[in-house]
Amino acid sequence: MKSKFIALITDFGTNDSFVSSMKGVIYSRYPSASVIDITHQIQAQNIKMGAFYIMVTMQYMPKNTLFIAVIDPDVGTGRGILWAKTRDYQFICPDNGLISWISEKEEILESRFINNSDLFLPKISPTFHGRDIMAPAAAEIAKGLKETKIGPIFNEYRKFPFPHPVRSGNNITGEALSVDNYGNVITNITREYVNVKSIFTVGGKIIKGLKLTYASVNDKEPLCLIGSFGFLEFSIRNGNFAQIYNVKPGDKIEAIVSLDE
Amino acid sequence: MKSKFIALITDFGTNDSFVSSMKGVIYSRYPSASVIDITHQIQAQNIKMGAFYIMVTMQYMPKNTLFIAVIDPDVGTGRGILWAKTRDYQFICPDNGLISWISEKEEILESRFINNSDLFLPKISPTFHGRDIMAPAAAEIAKGLKETKIGPIFNEYRKFPFPHPVRSGNNITGEALSVDNYGNVITNITREYVNVKSIFTVGGKIIKGLKLTYASVNDKEPLCLIGSFGFLEFSIRNGNFAQIYNVKPGDKIEAIVSLDE
Amino acid sequence: MKSKFIALITDFGTNDSFVSSMKGVIYSRYPSASVIDITHQIQAQNIKMGAFYIMVTMQYMPKNTLFIAVIDPDVGTGRGILWAKTRDYQFICPDNGLISWISEKEEILESRFINNSDLFLPKISPTFHGRDIMAPAAAEIAKGLKETKIGPIFNEYRKFPFPHPVRSGNNITGEALSVDNYGNVITNITREYVNVKSIFTVGGKIIKGLKLTYASVNDKEPLCLIGSFGFLEFSIRNGNFAQIYNVKPGDKIEAIVSLDE
Repeated sequence: MKSKFIALITDFGTNDSFVSSMKGVIYSRYPSASVIDITHQIQAQNIKMGAFYIMVTMQYMPKNTLFIAVIDPDVGTGRGILWAKTRDYQFICPDNGLISWISEKEEILESRFINNSDLFLPKISPTFHGRDIMAPAAAEIAKGLKETKIGPIFNEYRKFPFPHPVRSGNNITGEALSVDNYGNVITNITREYVNVKSIFTVGGKIIKGLKLTYASVNDKEPLCLIGSFGFLEFSIRNGNFAQIYNVKPGDKIEAIVSLDE
Repeated sequence: MKSKFIALITDFGTNDSFVSSMKGVIYSRYPSASVIDITHQIQAQNIKMGAFYIMVTMQYMPKNTLFIAVIDPDVGTGRGILWAKTRDYQFICPDNGLISWISEKEEILESRFINNSDLFLPKISPTFHGRDIMAPAAAEIAKGLKETKIGPIFNEYRKFPFPHPVRSGNNITGEALSVDNYGNVITNITREYVNVKSIFTVGGKIIKGLKLTYASVNDKEPLCLIGSFGFLEFSIRNGNFAQIYNVKPGDKIEAIVSLDE
Repeated sequence: MKSKFIALITDFGTNDSFVSSMKGVIYSRYPSASVIDITHQIQAQNIKMGAFYIMVTMQYMPKNTLFIAVIDPDVGTGRGILWAKTRDYQFICPDNGLISWISEKEEILESRFINNSDLFLPKISPTFHGRDIMAPAAAEIAKGLKETKIGPIFNEYRKFPFPHPVRSGNNITGEALSVDNYGNVITNITREYVNVKSIFTVGGKIIKGLKLTYASVNDKEPLCLIGSFGFLEFSIRNGNFAQIYNVKPGDKIEAIVSLDE
């Protein structure tokens, strides 16, 4: 699918030249491309964190944007490399579950195994398929390569289910999905599950009610709101919730939905 | 004002996807734009540090560049969002003082309240106006939107004065404005206030004379020079001045100007 | 040499506006340029680390890319500023050895002293030639300035030799060149020097045999492989080799090549 925009998400950090080498390969083949860095600070080899950031950013990217996601602990082994497309976006990544949560936003319409070695660099390092396979393949695909030339249809890609919250009467059980740079804890609970008078328990702390924004409470006070990713978040105004209450991704969140709203 | 270039300055860091979501929104509306990252490492919610970096970088950006500055502790409250222009540049930011020091470089010629919701994303998060209001409005303005369509003229924006040094006889009293990545202390004192034989006091340390460059002193020696921002700076050659002498923004700087130059 | 692409490598970090000011200057003069950030996290004033990253990334950049390398401890002193070209690339940097290892990849065909002050910013800070001399000169050169207008031919630039490994019978002595973000130790030893049954000694640790990829050993086990830069690397699967075995650039590496392969 033709696209000017290629979005990169990796766990490479920016201290080395891993990211820039990938960009060099892309621009060498497709000089008028425009690369958007989603983030390169995914925790090393944390595939779920990668899947999360793909899910929450895709809708903000230009239509047709091709994501390349390189969180790839099994690089150089037999694991395959995928290209997949939804109505509005497309994705290249190792077959390790990175595209698992895309379908929370848009259905995957087609997926292929990237095996056309004409697309790759002539020499492939067993430890850096991002640069030697994914980047050059992405450049060709984004330039408009016929999709049948990518490789065969492959629908048995790895996928881990999105952990939807569980409702039992007026109790909701969810979990922490991610912690952002400010220490805000992002959960898997969306607005539909709760109401403004709900009572939340996380990390041993009880928080009453849903607020609108950080400034709805006093300085250093904890609060709960629907954050900019569309999920329930726990924050401390001008403070670090995750650190103070020691909350990590995977930790349990409970909500009691009020009956008198 | 039409501009290919949009410059971003935020306190978001680059660990999350806040910056990339803003870029996605800009490029979705304005695919031929080019985004320049000023820095995303402004200390969280430090509006003065944001104002400082806008002031010292604007003159180096292409003419007409539209800055978007998002250091926004009061996001989601009643604070407004501004567009302002000078002769050569334009700015979008919350009405919290971020544009205060622009006029040290160029006079603000026009300022408007951004209230045309046709410019915004359809769904606005109360905690991320950078993505949902400022980025899409910036894209439309930089593409050439008629300026009257931005919103009404608004001249009562918040502004804190630039802390000019005070001269009393041959004594100059100034302050530390910022500390850079190397530990150099940037002050509010410009070349006109001092001469090469001045004697400086900062953090309990006395430094004699103005040097030309770092290599003008021996390794690990402190020095004072006019830095690349155009302000007096205190440095240690191959060392960290701010750390060793414990100097922070706001700290007092004194200079005695020599009479026999 | 005309080029759309300008690649930046510096020790500036991204906390301040040093990098963005350089980009602003480039885009002001050459709006259709495209800047690639190689990395800005070179250790402060570590010229060899800069030389290393130029050497290992150049081949992945678009043909004709103009590198600007600013690791410049002697800024403002008499040291000159160079432009050099190879068959496929070109380089601007202080004359301090930064281009030393380019010739491991491609021969330097021409080098000039940049002294045409028409190319510079009108006002030059003695502490930031990257912004005031190198960036504007790069923009003009990449736009297609006649090369004789850059300045005079200058072939006596500073150069430190690449530390090739030493072979003595079946013993190879090399050294650690760099440590990446994951703690992998990159050496100066290439594939030709060793075989898969070689025995390696580094930081007091003995490692037997060359593996193909990280997943060739168990979790937390050390290994040796040919890394993506084309050099022998020491790694720990999902661990930090440099930290655990306390290896730093310059440390000695020994290999005994097996005779029965």
